[in-house]
Amino acid sequence: MTKDINRQWLLRSRPVGLIQESDFDMIESSIPELKTGEFLIQNLYLSLDPTNRGWMNPVETYVPPVKLGSVMRGIGLGIVKESNNAEFKAGDIVTGLLGWQDYFVSDGSGWMTKIPSFSNVPLSAYLNLFGMIGLTAYFGLMDIGKPKEGETLVISAAAGAVGSLVGQIGKIQDCRVIGIAGTEEKCNWLTQTLEFDAAINYKTESVFNRLKELAPEGIDIFFANVGGKILDAALGNLRLHARIILCGLISQYNATERVPGPYNFPNILTKRATVTGFIVTDYFKRMDEAFKNLYSWYAKGRLHYREEIIDGLENAPKSLNKLFDGSNKGKLIIKISEEPSL
Amino acid sequence: MTKDINRQWLLRSRPVGLIQESDFDMIESSIPELKTGEFLIQNLYLSLDPTNRGWMNPVETYVPPVKLGSVMRGIGLGIVKESNNAEFKAGDIVTGLLGWQDYFVSDGSGWMTKIPSFSNVPLSAYLNLFGMIGLTAYFGLMDIGKPKEGETLVISAAAGAVGSLVGQIGKIQDCRVIGIAGTEEKCNWLTQTLEFDAAINYKTESVFNRLKELAPEGIDIFFANVGGKILDAALGNLRLHARIILCGLISQYNATERVPGPYNFPNILTKRATVTGFIVTDYFKRMDEAFKNLYSWYAKGRLHYREEIIDGLENAPKSLNKLFDGSNKGKLIIKISEEPSL
Repeated sequence: MTKDINRQWLLRSRPVGLIQESDFDMIESSIPELKTGEFLIQNLYLSLDPTNRGWMNPVETYVPPVKLGSVMRGIGLGIVKESNNAEFKAGDIVTGLLGWQDYFVSDGSGWMTKIPSFSNVPLSAYLNLFGMIGLTAYFGLMDIGKPKEGETLVISAAAGAVGSLVGQIGKIQDCRVIGIAGTEEKCNWLTQTLEFDAAINYKTESVFNRLKELAPEGIDIFFANVGGKILDAALGNLRLHARIILCGLISQYNATERVPGPYNFPNILTKRATVTGFIVTDYFKRMDEAFKNLYSWYAKGRLHYREEIIDGLENAPKSLNKLFDGSNKGKLIIKISEEPSL
Repeated sequence: MTKDINRQWLLRSRPVGLIQESDFDMIESSIPELKTGEFLIQNLYLSLDPTNRGWMNPVETYVPPVKLGSVMRGIGLGIVKESNNAEFKAGDIVTGLLGWQDYFVSDGSGWMTKIPSFSNVPLSAYLNLFGMIGLTAYFGLMDIGKPKEGETLVISAAAGAVGSLVGQIGKIQDCRVIGIAGTEEKCNWLTQTLEFDAAINYKTESVFNRLKELAPEGIDIFFANVGGKILDAALGNLRLHARIILCGLISQYNATERVPGPYNFPNILTKRATVTGFIVTDYFKRMDEAFKNLYSWYAKGRLHYREEIIDGLENAPKSLNKLFDGSNKGKLIIKISEEPSL
């Protein structure tokens, strides 16, 4: 054991609007003795994701809300330090809902996965393209979007962790890919490094008008991460039988009043489009299939990603808002502890 | 030829809100001489449908708007009186976009169908369960809804021509069927004659609360004809992986301001539901399959319907609004001419 103190971020109050650090308490606990079947994980990296914000609200979404006074839920990557469980041995690297804390004691139930052992992959990538992010992009696009050669794929939050991967998979599927992002730097990264066909800066351009110009025959596939005006602009430019993958509605996660649905909702009818809600947890059983393909593309140099790794568990609450003001560049990760030399 | 005057309702101005008779002009034209390949249809019945209202607006939906000054578009049933076309002979009964008029000259192009010849079926039924209405209910429910035994099916405008048929097909598929309608009389018809499991009167009850009571585990299939608060109530009560057939948004067809989409739109995501826009014209090629099944159920006495037949082409404009104030009982049809003795 390297430490015997477990720092834990507890949810103190349900945030109103953007989260405040005062919505959380950091406490120091001791690590309980391991019972039969249990094992101790030292957390190395914590993934910060837009969905974390929804978990703090008092309403059940696809998972129950985090209880007030309990450790904030979060996806993490850690190393097994001690084990009374035959399936998980000391030294194993695992991902799961490890929480906003230094240590997690598991009995192996719930979501607890040993990482696949790919060559030349940094550990943080298992919270990114070889983790939930990769599965989300892969199954959302491939299973729900069903991309076909020559189709037009449009992505909101396109420079984000999921969006940037969706676009690159779309290019591999020979789609025409248009990304929507919030800075010139992000737009340039999409078109120059990721080779998207076009990018729209939603802060300086009319998304509706630009989509009409760039996709005059309409959008075949829209990968929706954002909601609000951007979703409306896309729904206003659908092609017949368009598929909309409803993966996120980031723009309204901090809303303090009821947010209306998209004004262009009737276009779903007239264009005979399909809107499908998508949560990656439904696809866990097929993760091997996705990771195999993602790794093969990655090994060929066809998948790029960016990550912003912020040092220190103490920075978790204040960093989460970066996902909502767009100030992060790539996958947002908190580094909790130094990687062990493996 | 019984008459040589063709009364025609022309669209004079684009209605704002509910249509006014003054939005139309009735003119009297002569019937043109038939050219090679053409045939003359005398219209017997005109179908009034909610979608007619959308065709009057200046925006293209799934079909172009009716041009100002041209004959109002409408689905009709008529008899071929004279023919220079080998496929359509005098005496054939046909359906198609015959328009709000006494006579229609066709060259057989576009949508023009000889009615199937079922025994003991009144002609008006070919504008109802053996016409577009039947195809809409059948393919919307069976192909998009994919009903399974024991699932809960909820229908808005359930006492309407499409809705009442959807519910009865749902019962044949062993679903639990809940209908939403606007009068006690309609609700009683749904539960007593059509044997729906329950009915909700949206004018006197909270649809949201009643759905929560009647379907505590959520709705598997929602057949949406209406939009607005009723759509929102259904989206607020979805079961995991619900299917929503977006067939109509009647409540907003007369809107004079932009209507927001459903406030419960995010539930599509959290419940991993699918919303599919549906227009029956996409299924024309498979009409034989639908009519065969519908007739077999009808012949067994399992499909009931109501119709309200209003005499006289002159009453078409003023009757259409009945579909929007809910004062019609069953399929709304204008009788243009006496049926010939066949």
